[in-house]
Formats: sequence, C-alpha cells, structure tokens
Amino acid sequence: MLGKYLENVRKKSPLIHNITNYVTVNDVANVLLACGASPIMADEPDDAVEITAICNGLNINIGTLNSRTIESMFKAGKKARELGHVLLLDPVGAGASSLRTDTAVNLIKEIKFDVIRGNASEIKTLVLGSGTTHGVDADKADAVSDENLSFMIDFVKDFAKNSGSIIALTGAVDLVADAEKCFVIRNGRPEMGRITGTGCQLSGIMTAFIAANPENKLEAAAAAVCLMGLAGEIAFKNLQPGEGNSTYRNKIIDAVYNMTGEILDEGAKYEVR
Amino acid sequence: MLGKYLENVRKKSPLIHNITNYVTVNDVANVLLACGASPIMADEPDDAVEITAICNGLNINIGTLNSRTIESMFKAGKKARELGHVLLLDPVGAGASSLRTDTAVNLIKEIKFDVIRGNASEIKTLVLGSGTTHGVDADKADAVSDENLSFMIDFVKDFAKNSGSIIALTGAVDLVADAEKCFVIRNGRPEMGRITGTGCQLSGIMTAFIAANPENKLEAAAAAVCLMGLAGEIAFKNLQPGEGNSTYRNKIIDAVYNMTGEILDEGAKYEVR
Amino acid sequence: MLGKYLENVRKKSPLIHNITNYVTVNDVANVLLACGASPIMADEPDDAVEITAICNGLNINIGTLNSRTIESMFKAGKKARELGHVLLLDPVGAGASSLRTDTAVNLIKEIKFDVIRGNASEIKTLVLGSGTTHGVDADKADAVSDENLSFMIDFVKDFAKNSGSIIALTGAVDLVADAEKCFVIRNGRPEMGRITGTGCQLSGIMTAFIAANPENKLEAAAAAVCLMGLAGEIAFKNLQPGEGNSTYRNKIIDAVYNMTGEILDEGAKYEVR
Repeated sequence: MLGKYLENVRKKSPLIHNITNYVTVNDVANVLLACGASPIMADEPDDAVEITAICNGLNINIGTLNSRTIESMFKAGKKARELGHVLLLDPVGAGASSLRTDTAVNLIKEIKFDVIRGNASEIKTLVLGSGTTHGVDADKADAVSDENLSFMIDFVKDFAKNSGSIIALTGAVDLVADAEKCFVIRNGRPEMGRITGTGCQLSGIMTAFIAANPENKLEAAAAAVCLMGLAGEIAFKNLQPGEGNSTYRNKIIDAVYNMTGEILDEGAKYEVR
Repeated sequence: MLGKYLENVRKKSPLIHNITNYVTVNDVANVLLACGASPIMADEPDDAVEITAICNGLNINIGTLNSRTIESMFKAGKKARELGHVLLLDPVGAGASSLRTDTAVNLIKEIKFDVIRGNASEIKTLVLGSGTTHGVDADKADAVSDENLSFMIDFVKDFAKNSGSIIALTGAVDLVADAEKCFVIRNGRPEMGRITGTGCQLSGIMTAFIAANPENKLEAAAAAVCLMGLAGEIAFKNLQPGEGNSTYRNKIIDAVYNMTGEILDEGAKYEVR
Repeated sequence: MLGKYLENVRKKSPLIHNITNYVTVNDVANVLLACGASPIMADEPDDAVEITAICNGLNINIGTLNSRTIESMFKAGKKARELGHVLLLDPVGAGASSLRTDTAVNLIKEIKFDVIRGNASEIKTLVLGSGTTHGVDADKADAVSDENLSFMIDFVKDFAKNSGSIIALTGAVDLVADAEKCFVIRNGRPEMGRITGTGCQLSGIMTAFIAANPENKLEAAAAAVCLMGLAGEIAFKNLQPGEGNSTYRNKIIDAVYNMTGEILDEGAKYEVR
C-alpha cells in the first residue's frame, strides 16, 4: 500500500530545502539522497526565500535556531505557503526553552504547515503552550503506550483539526493523523534513540514524501514514518558484534538507500484508527 | 605521472583554511586529513583573516553563506592573495539564487583565484552571469559529454584565459584547464552523486594539492580530481550487498587515506587536450 | 578503579549542553549518546542560557567561534557557574589567532571552569598568554615525552593551582591534574590524530563523566581520557585492510558504545604522580 509513495519519491526526485540545525544536517542531506530526493540548505534570509522558491518542499527544523535563522524560517515559510509548496515543521526542543517554544508556536500561528512532526513532549508543548521536554528528547511520562493509545489518538486528531496540519507524533509508537484518520505505526527500534538525528532525518524524508505525493499527504507522511522505522529494523539486523551507534547510523541510511516499494509494503506495521 | 603530487601533500602536510558550508564540513576535514593535509575552519571575519595568514591555502565554499561569512570570504580572500597563498573558490549553488551568483561573481572580480571548481551549471553561471543550476546539482542539459567535449574544452579554456584562474568543471567527465591546456578526466562513479559533499571534499583536497605543488598547479589540480574519482571507484568495488550511500561515503574517504602515488598513477584516466 | 565512573554516566544519563564548533558537532553528539549521556546544542545567547539551566553540564568549545556564540559562551558559562553545574573549556586553536587566545583567556578570567582540556600548545598558550599552535594541532616541540615528563607534570599542576581548574593536557601522553595529583595516561593511538574531532569528542565525554561523578572530579576526568584512548585502541584492532580514518572514526564511537566498566578497568593504562 505505502510502497508506491516511496517509488514516487524516486521517480520525481523532489528538491527539498532544509533550514535545519548544524548537528544533524549532514545526515539529513544523505538520507534525502538515499530516498531519491535532492537536498539543499540555505539560512540567510534573502537566500532562504529564493532557494525556497526553486524547491518542491521546505523542512523547517528549529534545532539550533538563532535570530538570523529564525528570520529565515518565517520569511521562507511564508514564501513556501504563497507558492503552495509542501511545508513541514520539526519543533526540536519546544518545551525546553522559551525561544524554542515561542518560535514554534508563532510559526504555527503565522504559517499553515502541511505537517508538524515532533516527539510527544514537543507536540504536547505546542498544544498546551509550555512543556516538560527533556532537552531534545521526550519526557518518559509523555510516551504513547497501549494504555493511553485511544486518548493520544484523540489528542493528535484534535490538534490536527485545530491546526489544519497533519500531526506526526513519533516515539516507540508513532501516530500520524489528520482530523479524521490516524495511522498507528509500530516500526522502529529503541536503539534508534541512541543515534543523534533520526527524528531530523525523518522530517527531511517526510517533506520529500509529501512533495512527491501531494494528492495523498497523510498516507505519504505515514509511509515516511514506516520507511524510517523499517530501515532501523533492517540496519539493526545487519549489525555485527562490536558495532555501535555510529555504524548503526550509517546502516540505517544505507537501508533507506536500498529500500524498495515492495520491501516497504512487506515490512510496514500499522493500523488505521 | 600524477602520483608524485599526492606524495608531496603527504610530505609537506599543508595547513588548509576552509570557509565552508556546515552541511559537509566534517567530511571536508576528514578527507583533508586522509590525503595528508591539516584542516582548520574559521568564519568570523577577524579570526578568518588571522587564521588564513598562518595557513598554506584557503578554500572558499559558498554552500551555506550568510552575511557574516561572506564578509569573511572577502577579507580572508584578500589576505590570502596579499600573502601569495593558494586560493580556491567553490561556487556552490551559483545560478540557484542571486546571493550565491552575486557573491561568486564579485569574489572573482575582487580576488584572483588559483582555481575555480564547480559543476557545469555553476561554471556556466559564472561565465554568463545567470544560470539554471538545479539546487546544488548541475542541470542535466549542462553536462559534459562526448558530443559537446570539444566545445566544452574551448569553453573552460576561454574562461581560464579571461579569469586568469585554473577552471575545474567536474561531473561525469571532468575538465581541468588553464588557457592553454585541458585535462579531460574520466575517473569516478555516478553513485558519487548520491552522497552529499563529494564536490566540497574535492575542493578541499585540490587546495591542498596546489599548496603542496606550487610549481605545477594545473597538474596538481588534475591529480586531485583523479584521486577523488579513483577513490570513488575503489570504494565502489569495496561495497558489500546491503551497503548504500552512507557507507560509500566512509569508504571513499578511507580509499583516499590508503591511496599511494603508485595506485594513483595506475588508476588515473585522463588525456591532455 | 575507573570503570565505575563510566557506569555512573550510564546510570545517571546526564544532559550535556555543548556550545561547540560545527565541524565535529555531530560526532560529539553521537559519542555522548554512546557513553550513556544526552547531548543538546544551543548557541543563540538567550536560548543558550535557558538550555544551560536545564542541563547537568556545559561543554564550551571555541572551535568555530563567532561574535554571537562568544556572547553565548560567556552568558551560559556564568549561568552554569551560578547554578553549580559542571563546566568545561576546550580552547580549540588558542595560540593560533588572537580572537581564540583572548576568548579563552577571558573566559578563564571571568568564569571558573571545572576542567580545561586542550593540547599542549593550547594549554601553554593559556599559561603564557601567547603560543605557537599549529592550526588546531599541537606544535611538535610542545609534546609531552618521557624526557620532559616531570617538568610537564609540574607545569600542569601549577596551572591547576593558579586557575583552580583541573587541567587535562592531551596528546601522545595525557596529563590530568589538579594542584596535588596528576594522572599520567598512556592509552590511545597516534592514528587518532588523523581523524577530526577526537579531542572535541573527549571534551564532551569528560563533561558527562564529571557531571555524573561530582564527588570525584579528577578521577572522572582521568577515566574519560582512558575511555577515549582505549576506544581508539579497540577500534584500531578492529580495522580491516582497506579501511581508513573515516571508518576508524565510526569504530571509535562504536567502541565507546560497547565499553563496560570492566573493560575500562582492564584496559586503562595510567600512573598517578
């Protein structure tokens, strides 16, 4: 079902502009290339607007934001919206500082995003206005589990309805929802949390998936989540004794590179609620 | 023939200052170490000037330029020129935005570079003043092929003559030319385009090669192109089933690390026109 | 003896804020995750102060400093000191430019660091006010050797006494000293110098070790040095023919990931003087 959305990325090779943090930016670029898209990065305001205009999608990640890049996020975001381009927000660390929370909240107020993708603490912060994000990681108390699943599904659907955006709340269980429909996804490995930037990589991929599948945004966003999680499973199986998180990082990107629509169809674990 | 230029890099270990983008900077640093040079990065204007003064070469890459780093590029570039240091420009994304095009064009106007290294669309943009660069990748219509080879050789020789710089136009076929002489190089693998930053890495290496071989700049620049392409071929042969672009990236740098003058002499594929 | 300090990092998982350079930042993040800590990066002044407040330790690395990040270093450093958080300075390139030297010297004047970790040329620069740092690498003439060992031990103890900080001078032989006691450590491999950022990685790890072992700061700092060196030894043994510095980088982080207190106890090579 979802494999065709990957195939469309490989066919169309969307050009994705990333205003993103300098911690994980290289991995974001390589994983976009791995899934068949092309990355570009610009963060000086004028340049960011012009580069946005020639791209198919814009991925805004506030991971190491500063006053200059914040200006770029707002200006480029408005340009992307004006042009009808795909627009994703990754509110890294929202809840951990007021600059991060305020920037994410104001971006959502001023610009309608196609998708907002974050961990449970970040998403809660955006709904409630303040949060308990543990640095850039979700607070354990916020995690989606079988116990609170129905509640959390309603929570993300409500946020999707109020914001007009697809909400992708990712963690041990991933939820990808619009106002009506929620994909509950169980791909992935807990060891992915021991690598920096798997969330940032997913945001890049997801922007490409939606840009290449504009008629099926929700399904494309869910397919990106399944792809990243399945790549984490395949890479984990390929780990040899003595290998750790650095090699795991490489093998996940390698697994994205070698993924086909068929493998994704077979490996995707999800239900729709 | 070209292997000795690598051996000189390993012997002299030139210190190379890189004002470069934050996407691929780590790979640039590691590939410089792999070929025997030492990297340093600084981009605050005063610091960039002082660091330039203690180095043997300056590699200016406009990949994620901003107003502060642009100032550093001009000031450090002038200092390098004043001191007679090797100076390379990598006009990443020239043609994709006016800030990138203007910055590259003005750098060339105000500072004479030993080498300008870019893809076909970037180089065309510098000659024609505007371009059709597809993000940071060359437009397919601009590619060097057997059909347009003679025309393109004249094109780069003309640009070399007018700019007073060696022109390195890299792609499926690489051209490295001054006003009189053009190396046509056929090393490399198409899969290198699926990794971010092989061009940036080449610019770093090329700066080191010229710094270590000041009497033979054209040959040294060509040797750097052969080295990078050959490393891509060796790494490709070493890829195992299931490996992809992330591991390929590591194996290319590893291949540079293990390259000898003899291997380079045997593997370099070029003609002089 | 030292293995228990690693175990405490894994148990407590300290959150470490890094104001650091963009060259090696991804490796710093991944090595912190590898040893059981959590990384976060912020460098806009207000954000850096707030993020500092929620963390357990602050690692200041001046590798690609600029006017904005320098302001963040001073403000976040003062906040960390006020809150009694662990505070480490990595004076990358002190001695190579006046901005780097002055920033490091002034940071030390205005903020008391728990540890100052650098190479021999950087540390000499901080004591003498100016230096002969070769880019970001130590000048060979400054290296600690068996010939000058007693002199250098006194030198770092004196600096520790005068600054009130633990001094970690790392190179072929590593010295970790307070005013009274010096660990002389002989772990590591010379090939680690062919990878960018092993020093930066060590600074990140060391901040985490001290944050998790506040009662034994000197021993924890020494344990971090042994860990990094031993990881370099283990990774070197795991290198296959044809592998080079890029794969070595990954295998070192992997070795940190797989390190146990027991392995560290067996492999640590040090004496106390």
